[in-house]
Amino acid sequence: MEQVLSTNNLVISIDAMGGDNSPRIVIEGLALAAKKNPDARFILFGDEAKVMPILNQFPALKNVCEFRHATEVVHNEDKPSQVIRNRNTSMYMAIDAVRKGDAQAIVSAGNTGALMAISKMVLKTIQKIHRPAIVSIMPHRHGKYVMLDLGANTECNAINLAEFAIMGDILARHALGVEKPRIALLNIGTEEMKGREEIHQAAHMIKNSRMSLDYRGYIEPHEIPDGVADVIVADGFTGNIALKSIEGTARLVVRLLKDAVGKSFFAKIGMPFMLGVMLKVKKTMDPRLYNGAMLVGLNGLTVKSHGGTDALGYSVAVNNAIMLVRQNFVATIREEVEKVDLDELSQEAFYELY
Amino acid sequence: MEQVLSTNNLVISIDAMGGDNSPRIVIEGLALAAKKNPDARFILFGDEAKVMPILNQFPALKNVCEFRHATEVVHNEDKPSQVIRNRNTSMYMAIDAVRKGDAQAIVSAGNTGALMAISKMVLKTIQKIHRPAIVSIMPHRHGKYVMLDLGANTECNAINLAEFAIMGDILARHALGVEKPRIALLNIGTEEMKGREEIHQAAHMIKNSRMSLDYRGYIEPHEIPDGVADVIVADGFTGNIALKSIEGTARLVVRLLKDAVGKSFFAKIGMPFMLGVMLKVKKTMDPRLYNGAMLVGLNGLTVKSHGGTDALGYSVAVNNAIMLVRQNFVATIREEVEKVDLDELSQEAFYELY
Repeated sequence: MEQVLSTNNLVISIDAMGGDNSPRIVIEGLALAAKKNPDARFILFGDEAKVMPILNQFPALKNVCEFRHATEVVHNEDKPSQVIRNRNTSMYMAIDAVRKGDAQAIVSAGNTGALMAISKMVLKTIQKIHRPAIVSIMPHRHGKYVMLDLGANTECNAINLAEFAIMGDILARHALGVEKPRIALLNIGTEEMKGREEIHQAAHMIKNSRMSLDYRGYIEPHEIPDGVADVIVADGFTGNIALKSIEGTARLVVRLLKDAVGKSFFAKIGMPFMLGVMLKVKKTMDPRLYNGAMLVGLNGLTVKSHGGTDALGYSVAVNNAIMLVRQNFVATIREEVEKVDLDELSQEAFYELY
Repeated sequence: MEQVLSTNNLVISIDAMGGDNSPRIVIEGLALAAKKNPDARFILFGDEAKVMPILNQFPALKNVCEFRHATEVVHNEDKPSQVIRNRNTSMYMAIDAVRKGDAQAIVSAGNTGALMAISKMVLKTIQKIHRPAIVSIMPHRHGKYVMLDLGANTECNAINLAEFAIMGDILARHALGVEKPRIALLNIGTEEMKGREEIHQAAHMIKNSRMSLDYRGYIEPHEIPDGVADVIVADGFTGNIALKSIEGTARLVVRLLKDAVGKSFFAKIGMPFMLGVMLKVKKTMDPRLYNGAMLVGLNGLTVKSHGGTDALGYSVAVNNAIMLVRQNFVATIREEVEKVDLDELSQEAFYELY
């Protein structure tokens, strides 16, 4: 590894034990990502007896990996308050590798609450940011958008939401390449007084900030697919509900199509002609291609892969991590937030409101 | 009308002015509903100059309608606090017809907040119920489920959620014909401590109630299409977010398919064979066929049609109202809630919790 680190700076730390079918899916996915990013190196954390037999089946990957044994594992039912005290889990060790500078990002398919808690404790929140958020890049009709928070913060106040807008703006500029991202707050109506109080306050803050964010008002969930916003801001509970509703419905429609084709003789004749179209739509909506939620607002990049994804999905999460490391994403967020006077923003806004 | 009322008991009150393309869509939809329900009679409230020219084009409908002139209209931007004071709007008059016993249900495609506020004030909430809720019947893979609240109550406490579970249970038995409805609370995880505090408390109340509800725990939005619950309970903000996310995604997938077919020569050849399948899926997901949300918990039935629906969608809302009147739905809710000791239930549950 010494040699690897000296010739190359792009190192990703991997929690090999997180997710439903770990470490197999993790290693298979990593092999795909390594092929796509020949300059990337990996440090794998996990149970030697379980990881090594599989890693040995991928000699090309093994060549760009260092393995570090972890005696323990974070389980899905473990509480964040417990896991932050255990430094011997593969998840803790993988995150700690970023703090120590051994790696620039960490990817895990494990317990989201634990991943956020350990990341916050070990990597620390960027100064001025009150709450880190979980962000994903998602598809709409004409391109992509970022949505946050997707579940890190069950309850949010107006300041938290305004901070999410600022971080989302930066992410959309750097990860989507949008020059002036259009920002919207997720709500149940577009009229000013619709929805919850903290959303009204956040709207006021974002509108009146000196940062000249391109604030477009409230967005209702059914408008999201039209691509009218590049950044969609919500508290973690609402964002998670919207995300999972979108995922579930996309899957339902695909299943209904499959079921119906299976039962129809005519459809089976037409199917070969339609295959291209079906694949195109399936690809646009395929959750695996949008795998890899980012924990932003931390001094280090943590990427969360879906626990139930397959090798392709896992590789997308790793590719995302690599892309953001190449763009020096964490340093950019830190620099830009540095320029913003968040405290003043919120004091002013509250002063005006009351 | 006197004659109509004396020969028939099934009378629906109609706010002819609500919705995006009223009164045309309303009258066209009503004509469809009247054809399907030859024993139903209608009282139309609206602006005579706008309603009568259109109604005159539908002589069969006109035969089973009484028209009552309303000088004013509730607009989409009107605040509930204002509209409840104006007794001259078509919406107010249409609801008041149910209070007076002229009709058994009222259908409107107008401003939801206003409809709820006037309905609450005029029809009054059923004794023991703290908050009425908006309910819809929705499709899953193997059938239908009811979901509430869809937007009446932006903030809810545990007692409100427990009451929604009880009303949803009754609705699922009577409108879906499920003998023992499976009830689930919408949440962002299935573990006991996931999500918000009021959800945990509601779970405790529902589980420990003496009503022997078939409580199945938390449900995440992506599990809804699998049909694992017949009643899904949420606060109005969360329910509305989930509902609109589902609607938006279903529409996105259909549009992506259309766009892709339009661009593909091969797909156009295959399309005639696939038409049946496409139509079947479209029909399963068609929001028009699930139009007509019910306001439950009131001494009278108010049905809200989507403001942007077409004649077919509007007729479905009216058909829903007629179906529930035939089943004596309001009296059933009142009787069943009468049997439940809601106050005791909540006191007990809170006592156990703290």
